[in-house]
Amino acid sequence: MPAPLMNDRDLEFLLYELFDAEALTERTQFADHNRETFDATLNTAKTVAEKVLLPFRMKADNQEPTFDGEKVHMIPDIKTGVEAIIQSGLASPTASYETGGMQLPAIVANAASSYLVAAGGVATGYTALTTANANLVEAHGSAEQIEKWVLPMREGRFAGTMAMTEPGAGSGLADLTTSATKDEDGSYRVSGNKIYISGGDHELTENIVHLVLARVKGAPKGVKGISLFIVPKFLVNDDGSLGARNEVALAGLFHKMGGRAQTSTALNFGEQDGAIGYLVGEENKGLSYMFHMMNEARIMVGSSAATIGVAGYQYSLDYAKDRPQGRLLSEKDPHSSPVNIIEHPDIRRMLLTQKAYSEGALALCMYGSRLVDDEKTAATEEERQAAHTLLDFLTPIIKSWPSEYGPKANYYAIQVLGGAGYINEHPVEMFYRDNRLNPIHEGTTGIQSLDLLGRKVTMNGFAGYTACLNEMQKTIDEAKQSQALAGYAEQLADTIATLKHTTETVLTATQSQNIDAVFSNSVKYLDLFGHVVIAWLWLKQAIVADAALAAQPHEADEHFYRGKLQAMQYFFRIELPETKHWADIVANVDTTSYDMQVGWF
Amino acid sequence: MPAPLMNDRDLEFLLYELFDAEALTERTQFADHNRETFDATLNTAKTVAEKVLLPFRMKADNQEPTFDGEKVHMIPDIKTGVEAIIQSGLASPTASYETGGMQLPAIVANAASSYLVAAGGVATGYTALTTANANLVEAHGSAEQIEKWVLPMREGRFAGTMAMTEPGAGSGLADLTTSATKDEDGSYRVSGNKIYISGGDHELTENIVHLVLARVKGAPKGVKGISLFIVPKFLVNDDGSLGARNEVALAGLFHKMGGRAQTSTALNFGEQDGAIGYLVGEENKGLSYMFHMMNEARIMVGSSAATIGVAGYQYSLDYAKDRPQGRLLSEKDPHSSPVNIIEHPDIRRMLLTQKAYSEGALALCMYGSRLVDDEKTAATEEERQAAHTLLDFLTPIIKSWPSEYGPKANYYAIQVLGGAGYINEHPVEMFYRDNRLNPIHEGTTGIQSLDLLGRKVTMNGFAGYTACLNEMQKTIDEAKQSQALAGYAEQLADTIATLKHTTETVLTATQSQNIDAVFSNSVKYLDLFGHVVIAWLWLKQAIVADAALAAQPHEADEHFYRGKLQAMQYFFRIELPETKHWADIVANVDTTSYDMQVGWF
Repeated sequence: MPAPLMNDRDLEFLLYELFDAEALTERTQFADHNRETFDATLNTAKTVAEKVLLPFRMKADNQEPTFDGEKVHMIPDIKTGVEAIIQSGLASPTASYETGGMQLPAIVANAASSYLVAAGGVATGYTALTTANANLVEAHGSAEQIEKWVLPMREGRFAGTMAMTEPGAGSGLADLTTSATKDEDGSYRVSGNKIYISGGDHELTENIVHLVLARVKGAPKGVKGISLFIVPKFLVNDDGSLGARNEVALAGLFHKMGGRAQTSTALNFGEQDGAIGYLVGEENKGLSYMFHMMNEARIMVGSSAATIGVAGYQYSLDYAKDRPQGRLLSEKDPHSSPVNIIEHPDIRRMLLTQKAYSEGALALCMYGSRLVDDEKTAATEEERQAAHTLLDFLTPIIKSWPSEYGPKANYYAIQVLGGAGYINEHPVEMFYRDNRLNPIHEGTTGIQSLDLLGRKVTMNGFAGYTACLNEMQKTIDEAKQSQALAGYAEQLADTIATLKHTTETVLTATQSQNIDAVFSNSVKYLDLFGHVVIAWLWLKQAIVADAALAAQPHEADEHFYRGKLQAMQYFFRIELPETKHWADIVANVDTTSYDMQVGWF
Repeated sequence: MPAPLMNDRDLEFLLYELFDAEALTERTQFADHNRETFDATLNTAKTVAEKVLLPFRMKADNQEPTFDGEKVHMIPDIKTGVEAIIQSGLASPTASYETGGMQLPAIVANAASSYLVAAGGVATGYTALTTANANLVEAHGSAEQIEKWVLPMREGRFAGTMAMTEPGAGSGLADLTTSATKDEDGSYRVSGNKIYISGGDHELTENIVHLVLARVKGAPKGVKGISLFIVPKFLVNDDGSLGARNEVALAGLFHKMGGRAQTSTALNFGEQDGAIGYLVGEENKGLSYMFHMMNEARIMVGSSAATIGVAGYQYSLDYAKDRPQGRLLSEKDPHSSPVNIIEHPDIRRMLLTQKAYSEGALALCMYGSRLVDDEKTAATEEERQAAHTLLDFLTPIIKSWPSEYGPKANYYAIQVLGGAGYINEHPVEMFYRDNRLNPIHEGTTGIQSLDLLGRKVTMNGFAGYTACLNEMQKTIDEAKQSQALAGYAEQLADTIATLKHTTETVLTATQSQNIDAVFSNSVKYLDLFGHVVIAWLWLKQAIVADAALAAQPHEADEHFYRGKLQAMQYFFRIELPETKHWADIVANVDTTSYDMQVGWF
């Protein structure tokens, strides 16, 4: 029997015991749903993952798409996988009924999606970008654009991409040079080169809808002069039929370390007369629209990273339970049988580390999705605004912490398997490669850290920051009621006090010291905040587990809850104390890196 | 111009300023050598690396060897590379003149080898194993065996492997089942299956000499019943010509995440009548002979890991100096030009981290090689024994610390390049994959930690442990003489005091508590000791740099020494304080992992 992709019981715990997804069914948007429809969605996803996607996971990794100068070729299984996802409604499960969705809560969609990602993430790579693209156009495009582009994307006839990065600009969007000139008919002519465009060309769909950031001639310099355009691979006639080929040329495919079945492309737009593009919303507001998509994309990246972490944990756990090797140190008889490696304390340490990282990260991402639901469907404007504020604040942490600690979990998954972990008979080396992209795309960890410390903390009079601390305080107060948890609540409270002191100190330092020096430890600050948030989520989980244990559950559940408590203890004893030193570095404005001169390297 | 493979200046510093390799020329063994011959060796290695190996580094990674059921096929460049290494004398540079070597010191050979490894490590993978095999047979085999097997290996006509791991036994050598039966002519018939045998089959050489661990019928159980055999692919006649094909069959090739050009094989020995094998030394002493090779192999693994760390650092440094992107936070003018990314404090942090890790690791490995030289050629038996004791103690750290922190350095090399780091146009993603093997092979990090805490610390009345602490104390005393370094000397002394306390506490705990529980944090202990040792080596480097700066060197040297001081400060300020918490975990016998029950996962 293959190793489980995800831990079903943990998803159930996150949805129904920790984040009360059932309560969402009382809202109009989700009125048709109940726990049965949620479970059915998860089961569908699990079935598609196991039956359709998993069988070609390794093949897709081994047989990269190729480009013959005309077309992109890939193994046919990918199309089968994409179609299975679309047909089962899992491509846009949160979309409204009108646009072909199932109106499911984001938290349920996220849980369902985790099965698909754990089964390789290949097909979801294509569908998720399409969905994000469709969501953006639905939010900011015209009715005509929604009709023309969004509906075919929801149906799976068209695919979508986001084309931001340029060879000369990378993360520095202010310097992008792709240009757009308005034509007499109101459309634009777009010219420029884009790179690292995921799904930028393929034959999976009839058409591909590129969302392209470009600068209208005469626009202001910097990020304030960026507009957003729909630039399709094929033009579309008014009756919805495909028209002429647009000037979007595939210059080549990149060969990535992981996620190898998803094409990463270099695209040239408008090499002759300019590619025909359609402005989304207003000129010069492109970046804010794109950020609408980016915030969703950032939760998606965090979730993928967490999920790949869980998948590696589940696989290495399964392996460790079955693989006999060696004896315990306390066993002196060489005639005794070898034990399964899970008996070795160091293997348990590596499994528990994976559990603490990956389940902690997953809880954070599911919490993020729950906030998306509240942001969109909570009863009052005040509640919706509160959810938005908190989510906006947490986004850099939701993006980064799983992206940094998911790969660390995968590191241990390999190590548990030993030599077997290094070869492609087992998927853990693929997880390790696939997950390495997550600290890079949709804003690197460095960029997230500047977003957190440089923008989110102080934004709107510390509104998000304060909201986050308040939420954590509620959990601390609750945990203090439990004899078993009071000590951990105290420890978290102490660490938060350190975090607050650090925040105040570093912000004060910006008034008297060079900002480049003060912010040179921004990643340590992100690490610190991230660890506090994950500790908080572990304490939240422990409260539920502690209460459930008091009710004397059946044996399987008792084991599950004890595991949760043990992982919480691991995080508090082994991980959280690391933050003390990180806080010192930030608060003392350590300038060791800043002072390092270019010539000294 | 391509990025430098290694930092020439740093190798010069390590050889001549830090570890006084020139002093070795006073010893009989190295009497023909001087700094000029050492430099010539390094230059030869650099030339072979740049001209022969580097041009096919990416190709070798992309085009894995294949097995058609009969023979192994690989790109011809690998044979060219192997031959260039052998012909330039770089395969066995430390071997005696009689066996075709150059009688170079190990430290010089290690420095020279680093260029070859940085250029891809493909060809050296084959030659280094052959050399290790030849060294073992030279040390423990008969004169006839040396004549028959070692000389052709030194000449490059034969290749060598080590065949230890079995499908059912992995790291648990006590359970290996390959059997050997003595024949009437004194040879043995060997039967069994071995896996993960690097270079186990190929067409690079006329013959392949497998060193196989097997159990003679009737031998004691466990590790005390293991013998070592030479089992060649082709038998060899008394005149040295090749005889019949031996019963060594290639069952298949493994597909690894990295080091992809080096075949990793499953070999079946003696499927019909038994493969013909020749006992090395005495029966049942095989493991101790193999450990002779393993200790060399462990220094080699550490050195490779450090070198790949340096190579990634050099590459990302080169990239960061040339790639313009974004602006400093302090720059408010969007019309200003983008800066090279090395100007961004977070990029500098990631480069300085790589420098601290990889140059620290390299210094440790070069120190290990210097101890090999002392162990073999120091003037008195007492000095040789002292070097042996210290080296034996340090071996698990030399193996593990670079293997754990080299990949971490490569993680940052990718991150410095961003999206470009994730694609194979740049070698940093390959370094990341290649380096991931090092914490696994030749004894995992977990096994090294048990070797350190369970054996090496207490061995011979704490002889190695005490010798190590004494060496560190000498450096502390010296550093205290410098105003600039006294504070760091103090910090190291404090950390060593913590280390001593931790050691005593944990060893005392073994008397009253379950040993499996007490040793469950052995990896944290290894981390702690490793960080102390690396901090010590950084302080040693700082002493040299500090003195050199006082002599007002020319500008390039001044920059180099300032860089060394800054990296030392980085390690002491950012890294070393982490050990406090690790020490607490070990000394308090934290049982969080140990207590985690199998059913709770």
